[in-house]
Amino acid sequence: MNMENTPQTPEQEIEELRATQTLTRRAVSPGMEEHLYTIHPVLDHGFVRVIDYMGDDAAITQAARVSYGKGTKAVSNDEGLIRYLMRHWHSTPFEMCEIKLHVKLPVFVARQWIRHRTANVNEYSARYSILDREFYIPAVEDLAAQSTTNNQGRGDTLEGEEAQRVLNYLRDDAMRAYDHYEEMISQDGQQGLARELARMNLPANIYTQWYWKVDLHNLFHFLRLRADAHAQYEIRVYADEICRLVKDWVPYAYSAFEDYRLGGATLSGKALDCVRRMLAGEEVTQETSGMSKGEWREFRGVLNDPG
Amino acid sequence: MNMENTPQTPEQEIEELRATQTLTRRAVSPGMEEHLYTIHPVLDHGFVRVIDYMGDDAAITQAARVSYGKGTKAVSNDEGLIRYLMRHWHSTPFEMCEIKLHVKLPVFVARQWIRHRTANVNEYSARYSILDREFYIPAVEDLAAQSTTNNQGRGDTLEGEEAQRVLNYLRDDAMRAYDHYEEMISQDGQQGLARELARMNLPANIYTQWYWKVDLHNLFHFLRLRADAHAQYEIRVYADEICRLVKDWVPYAYSAFEDYRLGGATLSGKALDCVRRMLAGEEVTQETSGMSKGEWREFRGVLNDPG
Amino acid sequence: MNMENTPQTPEQEIEELRATQTLTRRAVSPGMEEHLYTIHPVLDHGFVRVIDYMGDDAAITQAARVSYGKGTKAVSNDEGLIRYLMRHWHSTPFEMCEIKLHVKLPVFVARQWIRHRTANVNEYSARYSILDREFYIPAVEDLAAQSTTNNQGRGDTLEGEEAQRVLNYLRDDAMRAYDHYEEMISQDGQQGLARELARMNLPANIYTQWYWKVDLHNLFHFLRLRADAHAQYEIRVYADEICRLVKDWVPYAYSAFEDYRLGGATLSGKALDCVRRMLAGEEVTQETSGMSKGEWREFRGVLNDPG
Amino acid sequence: MNMENTPQTPEQEIEELRATQTLTRRAVSPGMEEHLYTIHPVLDHGFVRVIDYMGDDAAITQAARVSYGKGTKAVSNDEGLIRYLMRHWHSTPFEMCEIKLHVKLPVFVARQWIRHRTANVNEYSARYSILDREFYIPAVEDLAAQSTTNNQGRGDTLEGEEAQRVLNYLRDDAMRAYDHYEEMISQDGQQGLARELARMNLPANIYTQWYWKVDLHNLFHFLRLRADAHAQYEIRVYADEICRLVKDWVPYAYSAFEDYRLGGATLSGKALDCVRRMLAGEEVTQETSGMSKGEWREFRGVLNDPG
Repeated sequence: MNMENTPQTPEQEIEELRATQTLTRRAVSPGMEEHLYTIHPVLDHGFVRVIDYMGDDAAITQAARVSYGKGTKAVSNDEGLIRYLMRHWHSTPFEMCEIKLHVKLPVFVARQWIRHRTANVNEYSARYSILDREFYIPAVEDLAAQSTTNNQGRGDTLEGEEAQRVLNYLRDDAMRAYDHYEEMISQDGQQGLARELARMNLPANIYTQWYWKVDLHNLFHFLRLRADAHAQYEIRVYADEICRLVKDWVPYAYSAFEDYRLGGATLSGKALDCVRRMLAGEEVTQETSGMSKGEWREFRGVLNDPG
Repeated sequence: MNMENTPQTPEQEIEELRATQTLTRRAVSPGMEEHLYTIHPVLDHGFVRVIDYMGDDAAITQAARVSYGKGTKAVSNDEGLIRYLMRHWHSTPFEMCEIKLHVKLPVFVARQWIRHRTANVNEYSARYSILDREFYIPAVEDLAAQSTTNNQGRGDTLEGEEAQRVLNYLRDDAMRAYDHYEEMISQDGQQGLARELARMNLPANIYTQWYWKVDLHNLFHFLRLRADAHAQYEIRVYADEICRLVKDWVPYAYSAFEDYRLGGATLSGKALDCVRRMLAGEEVTQETSGMSKGEWREFRGVLNDPG
Repeated sequence: MNMENTPQTPEQEIEELRATQTLTRRAVSPGMEEHLYTIHPVLDHGFVRVIDYMGDDAAITQAARVSYGKGTKAVSNDEGLIRYLMRHWHSTPFEMCEIKLHVKLPVFVARQWIRHRTANVNEYSARYSILDREFYIPAVEDLAAQSTTNNQGRGDTLEGEEAQRVLNYLRDDAMRAYDHYEEMISQDGQQGLARELARMNLPANIYTQWYWKVDLHNLFHFLRLRADAHAQYEIRVYADEICRLVKDWVPYAYSAFEDYRLGGATLSGKALDCVRRMLAGEEVTQETSGMSKGEWREFRGVLNDPG
Repeated sequence: MNMENTPQTPEQEIEELRATQTLTRRAVSPGMEEHLYTIHPVLDHGFVRVIDYMGDDAAITQAARVSYGKGTKAVSNDEGLIRYLMRHWHSTPFEMCEIKLHVKLPVFVARQWIRHRTANVNEYSARYSILDREFYIPAVEDLAAQSTTNNQGRGDTLEGEEAQRVLNYLRDDAMRAYDHYEEMISQDGQQGLARELARMNLPANIYTQWYWKVDLHNLFHFLRLRADAHAQYEIRVYADEICRLVKDWVPYAYSAFEDYRLGGATLSGKALDCVRRMLAGEEVTQETSGMSKGEWREFRGVLNDPG
């Protein structure tokens, strides 16, 4: 069992890596090279950091051209071909790019994130190691009330005394839980509880970290769901940050994703029928639309119409 | 739009289902029918309950016979064929069986469990709903100390005052965290914090629940890792319980799994070489084995030899 | 090695299974029970046959209610909830249903089909067994010419002599290839080429068969791509047949799928903007749309407008 | 819209890429850089070519150290840690490396290969493009007879006239099938059959090509099955070639894989019991082993004992 005198943290080790550059024959994305290893802060103690990547915009079209052969020559440039692939749901060429991120995030965010199964994950293990005393405490302006109209959403920001009480609870409970965690695992004058047990005392706003590796197609799927207005704010800020990184990594692919996925919408057969009737001059109401009230409200929302 | 006068809990709804039996043309496993919908308690508040299953031992050999055609006729019976398939890592026939479980488990166990990605999951959402006041508090005999020789393991059981202090911390912190959770989301005389935020105050020993659906091959992989002596006790008891269910569901497949996976061991090329030399009468030591000390210790363990 | 006197074909074995019905506590779909084990012919020698299934419409909402808890009580009935889940891309409840099909299909169709990776497959092995002399020979009306405008599509039907020549080539080459296959593997007066080698002489219109097991969410994804007008006819007929089966299995889910996926369309941000402008009375042309010519043509197609 | 005067083949495009080297901050594997873009011939017309890679040996231990934290400090060097991870089936750190290959291979090999689902694939599409006139014709010494003892294997090499007849069939049928393929799709004086149909006339020894991207853990799984003595020769030569590449890419990981997987063996509980009894001096026979004849034969094989 090695007890090195000057233990380097993983962060320091990574920082060192950034110092050197090496020649490679591989595809290089200049925009991404700039971001490599740099910490992009998210929330109060979290971050996103790119550890590695594979491929660039040209890698997408290169794969598509092997796939579709001469069929792809008709589209004269990379950007056009990438837009075509995205529009027609040809997902496999996007799978040819890969990214590896180092992410530090609260446990309750990690629990949402991990629902996306088509990725590789190495998470810091509280079974083997001791967690740090770092908790997410929301900024006052992010202390949202439960929505009164929607089980799934947030309403207005909490105010005054109520906000202060919430912050106090979150802070005090976290600190006390961590004090007891430390006390339970301490081997000073006692046996010390196993780490794999002691961790159960820690609340879901404690920070964890992981390496997360995913291909571009599945990353876009993740971003479409998590960079969306309906996603919880605390995961959306991570998705937003990753969007900025992807934009610099594969600008054509990101731009197509923005237009066709983030900014797009899927209309049902009924909704398309309504659009056609409306364009033909017909006055369509919820009653004549064939849609439920909920669907109609969402449809009007897509058309930016208070209807 | 809430219409229910007498809201049924999901548990009650499921209980009702058990009352009726219907005719089906599908493969039926008599052993599993007995378990369907029955709660099998695990830990202090957890459980495993079979919600549905697809296939039986015969479904495995049926798929293998479509695959390997006449090649499988040489093995004269289902049990022999299933052992053959398991021994030779022919995994696809085992994928032809599927099971759906309803599991109630502490969050820190759920976080280990979800690492197995090849399964379908529907978890109770603390974003939409309010969690119950139920926490895992270990039995006194399960309060293990950190191992002094192994970062990853447990040592002796805590004793006396130390054990009592740990139990007090776990109970008191959980209760206080839940009191504050309830207080924060309360809309009584205040706005009430959004549930998706309030949940972050809850510790990792709170219980959650999910539907977990997986094919038999991937379930065996899960069980091999989690019904193992090195797995954390709190997930192992779930794996052990599932083992008992699988044994009644597909007895031949489970028996093969027990012999070839649970009770088996993988020897390296070096270890096989040592076995051959030892069988030829040679005295082999760690120094002459070509193995590291750790490997040698594990190898002697497999041979049940203190060596 | 058993040499049974009256070898049963897998087909006969399956047919026998259909004779008996057994009581089960599991969810039963009456519509699907009718289809179980029945051969649904596709193309000239192919078929689709349901071997097993798990779950029904109620299994989808049951999982959603465990997930979203009281949040789902607002939607008063199963059909409404299923439509809500489909509309908002909540895919995990649909993963709670599973289907196992026995499919007989030409190899070139199997090669497209297998691209969908999230399924379990047991294919008849030409390495172990001898393939039957069965080839897909298109009906005359399905002998389509290469599209002159689209690398990926079909044009008009071939006519007269050309059609006849194609049919002759396909038939004669298949028969000759199979004659030689048989001759090469024959052990009559010679050693006989290994089956795993001899199979390489067989063309891609020979029939193979497999068991294919998939969850409902991934099946819908498959059907959306393969029951589409742009899919190759020879795989589309399989997808169409499976659509009919799914409709009887989970009628609410299928109806939602039909409206939101099969009959729906995804509009890009640019396209939505155009719709909004057109509804506001503006005359929008390709030039003012911000779309490329290809996009604009497809957009007009969605609106059923020759534009 | 075809604009190219001097159409570059994908091969030429890739060759060009090799000319330039660029600075990168990413992990670089010197051994792999040497192989990048170089064609490694396999069979008569096939090849394996590395298009891109992510990570090196250090990337595996880096991920493990984030995961297991201080727990990994006990193992003092990268090689020891990698061996430890492999021995204890800690697969996620190996998933942190990724490789992208360009492979040209006969269709019947591709059909085996694609059974490994945890990879990304872009295959040359015979629906969109025209296949080349290239077929795998085995060398005379690879013309194996069907095994007389094993449905799944090869026996001796074919001799004399029989071998010649097989070669003639394979060559002539392939050439004739391709002649007719070309004739059917020709638009010279006729409409020309759609490519997506014409391809069905081509036998399974025609060459196809694809980009195949996979992480190191899943690649090892592929190699364990396909670089095995029981794998079909025609896929094994690809696996062997990839083994050589991986050895230069991640030498420590490959060496651990070689010892623990390729050169290792899994013994059942019964087999381990026999080893223990044999080491204790007992004479164990098939009858007293508890194993079937087949298992016993395989067990004696592992011990290199004709038994």
